[in-house]
Amino acid sequence: MTEIDATHDQRRSWVPSANDHSGFPIQNLPLGIFSPSGGTPRGGIAIGDHILDLAALAAAGLLSGEAASAAKAASAETLNAFLAQGAASRSTLRHSVSDLLSEGAPPHPELLHEAAACTLHLPATIGDYTDFYAGIHHALNVGRLLRSAEPLMQNYKYLPVAYHGRASSVRPSATQVQRPAGQRKRADDPHPTYGPSRSLDHELELGIWIGPGNTLGTPIPIANAAQHIAGFCLLCDWSARDIQGWEAKPLGPFLGKSFLTTVSPWIITPEALAPFRIAQPPRPDGDPAPLDHLRDTTDGALDLELEVTLQPAGGTPQRLSLGQAAALYWTPAQMVAHHTSNGCNLRPGDLFGTGTISGPTPQSAGSMLELSQAGRAPITLPSGETRRFLEDGDTIRLHARASRPGYASIGFGECAGTIVKARD
Amino acid sequence: MTEIDATHDQRRSWVPSANDHSGFPIQNLPLGIFSPSGGTPRGGIAIGDHILDLAALAAAGLLSGEAASAAKAASAETLNAFLAQGAASRSTLRHSVSDLLSEGAPPHPELLHEAAACTLHLPATIGDYTDFYAGIHHALNVGRLLRSAEPLMQNYKYLPVAYHGRASSVRPSATQVQRPAGQRKRADDPHPTYGPSRSLDHELELGIWIGPGNTLGTPIPIANAAQHIAGFCLLCDWSARDIQGWEAKPLGPFLGKSFLTTVSPWIITPEALAPFRIAQPPRPDGDPAPLDHLRDTTDGALDLELEVTLQPAGGTPQRLSLGQAAALYWTPAQMVAHHTSNGCNLRPGDLFGTGTISGPTPQSAGSMLELSQAGRAPITLPSGETRRFLEDGDTIRLHARASRPGYASIGFGECAGTIVKARD
Repeated sequence: MTEIDATHDQRRSWVPSANDHSGFPIQNLPLGIFSPSGGTPRGGIAIGDHILDLAALAAAGLLSGEAASAAKAASAETLNAFLAQGAASRSTLRHSVSDLLSEGAPPHPELLHEAAACTLHLPATIGDYTDFYAGIHHALNVGRLLRSAEPLMQNYKYLPVAYHGRASSVRPSATQVQRPAGQRKRADDPHPTYGPSRSLDHELELGIWIGPGNTLGTPIPIANAAQHIAGFCLLCDWSARDIQGWEAKPLGPFLGKSFLTTVSPWIITPEALAPFRIAQPPRPDGDPAPLDHLRDTTDGALDLELEVTLQPAGGTPQRLSLGQAAALYWTPAQMVAHHTSNGCNLRPGDLFGTGTISGPTPQSAGSMLELSQAGRAPITLPSGETRRFLEDGDTIRLHARASRPGYASIGFGECAGTIVKARD
Repeated sequence: MTEIDATHDQRRSWVPSANDHSGFPIQNLPLGIFSPSGGTPRGGIAIGDHILDLAALAAAGLLSGEAASAAKAASAETLNAFLAQGAASRSTLRHSVSDLLSEGAPPHPELLHEAAACTLHLPATIGDYTDFYAGIHHALNVGRLLRSAEPLMQNYKYLPVAYHGRASSVRPSATQVQRPAGQRKRADDPHPTYGPSRSLDHELELGIWIGPGNTLGTPIPIANAAQHIAGFCLLCDWSARDIQGWEAKPLGPFLGKSFLTTVSPWIITPEALAPFRIAQPPRPDGDPAPLDHLRDTTDGALDLELEVTLQPAGGTPQRLSLGQAAALYWTPAQMVAHHTSNGCNLRPGDLFGTGTISGPTPQSAGSMLELSQAGRAPITLPSGETRRFLEDGDTIRLHARASRPGYASIGFGECAGTIVKARD
């Protein structure tokens, strides 16, 4: 279990905005890759509305020993090599940076950049991206819409269902969402046609960044699985429901998803989230216990509130849903153990999506498909506008926050995208 | 259309084994990455039973201008940068190397290594691996075994069905095939158990290596699609049928495939295969014409014979099947156009599998699933042994050969794997 250590005490930072409920207090210290204005990509740590430049830190001679080595590894163009080093390096760097940025320590404003003036990149080169389906309320909602006879497949409670996603089209927050074209066929169409998707959707997910990983042929035991999780982000699994519906039999989602997946750019570390680990909620009576190789006896779930807003073109952001990460049926450690249980190798910088996180109520549904009952029951936004699916000009934003009395609350930053019209 | 040029005339090589029906005559010149004994990985070209060292060639000063640049790009640790350069660089290098290795040219044995003393690697770092399902006889056979009511889904003849595969576990030929463990459940089991697969299978496929690729949001038109194909290989899509059957609903194959995919290590170029391009066989009466964005008017298919052998431990290789690449319902160009039709970006070094290539007869079935009717009708090998699926100690080998009167025949090398027992 990740320890709740001194980095979570009530310390404040000499960076004033870090103390302003920004979501990036000194207790967070998320890792990312950024370019300062006119500069090249490098590792950084978000602090309030600024970014600590790890390349500048490594060059400044303020750190020594393992902390200096960790800062150097984390200052490269991608975080892959640093993620490969695992928890010890992350923790060493976290402690040093926490001390360096603490109120009372000598300020080093020369190591900071204003975040608003920087470009944020993907934090790592993604070797493989896997999308799970661990949101049981989403699976139930979708199952009822598409397969009312058997909304949940028989395997659902025995293993974390997943499919391979497309790594090449994962992009950081604020990347425009060009409406994809594709083949789609309505029930009464005699044959499919090729054209812009008519049912573009968002899916609210957590992303999981993989750390050290394993060699091919050697599964990661569930007891060690958490050591291979380097951190978390928000993930929007954009979905063209009409393309997906037509193509997906019998081999699953493909072009209905692969046009874009958006992630929030900061890796929120297990160390930052240590105070917000909770036991996985007990399974309902009658559900099978996980098989031994998937039994997660740690506090494997996250107490994390998740919000989706929609801002129509020229309008204001309006809440679409509010949910809880603990609604996931499977923990991240169970996902790691399952994924490697056949010997499949994970590599540093691999990305998982958890699957859409919906709750038991309509107000906690993490996709338009669920909110509008597959478009049959358009929703009315607080502004009075209606939506079946997303329209050109709409901006979707995902946010997350971990809060607990006595602890600074931890934000994830933003995972956002604006829909732009299809290519001519 | 790829031109049939002078590199396909009756020239012979000063490398004697190139003239011995090795599959690697001077008309082939496939690209790969190898390490000579004690050396580091670098680009090479197979010629007979030798490998031309492109790093040595680039350093030798025998080439100039564009040919020298191409040899340098192809001499790196992976071929990704060279594949990105597309057909012009490939063709330039091919012509120079063909002239250099021709009988009558000054021999340069110092540029060669004995292939048997070298280690062969993956030719490129694979960004994403996509597995198609374009073998219609396989799709029909599997559909009849699993879903007799509707063996072929309605979408099959409108688009090349595909799913994302796992890039991290693609390995070159001769990698051992460790029998995977996983969750599996027989129809009469009350619940699933975790253990070694009881129905391990091979699937005969062609692999397609991607060249330049496209930017996110910009589809590749069908007319340009062939320009993005850097070459071909053999691909064995190892499949644990019991794991796959239990996990795959509703999102498709995952751990039943991701434990290993094996490819033959040489990239057989479009230039080498130019004499063996044929028009896609006409679709049967009643089948829909492809939609405009998938209409391939070139000679998009390959006239290529494909063989699978099984060698039991201590036994001799015995033929399992003999098939034809032209049995594919969709061409490689159609796969490229479809894959990018939603704006999904392909990157140099991406890999496609065509899907299992079976023919209309039992003797041309490209998997044990089909040969043994899902294990219900064990096959008898010429040696008298029987098989439902693959057993520990079995070696599967895939071979391919392109032949046409008046042209040197082109081999693909070998795609092989020996099954070893599951991890304790």
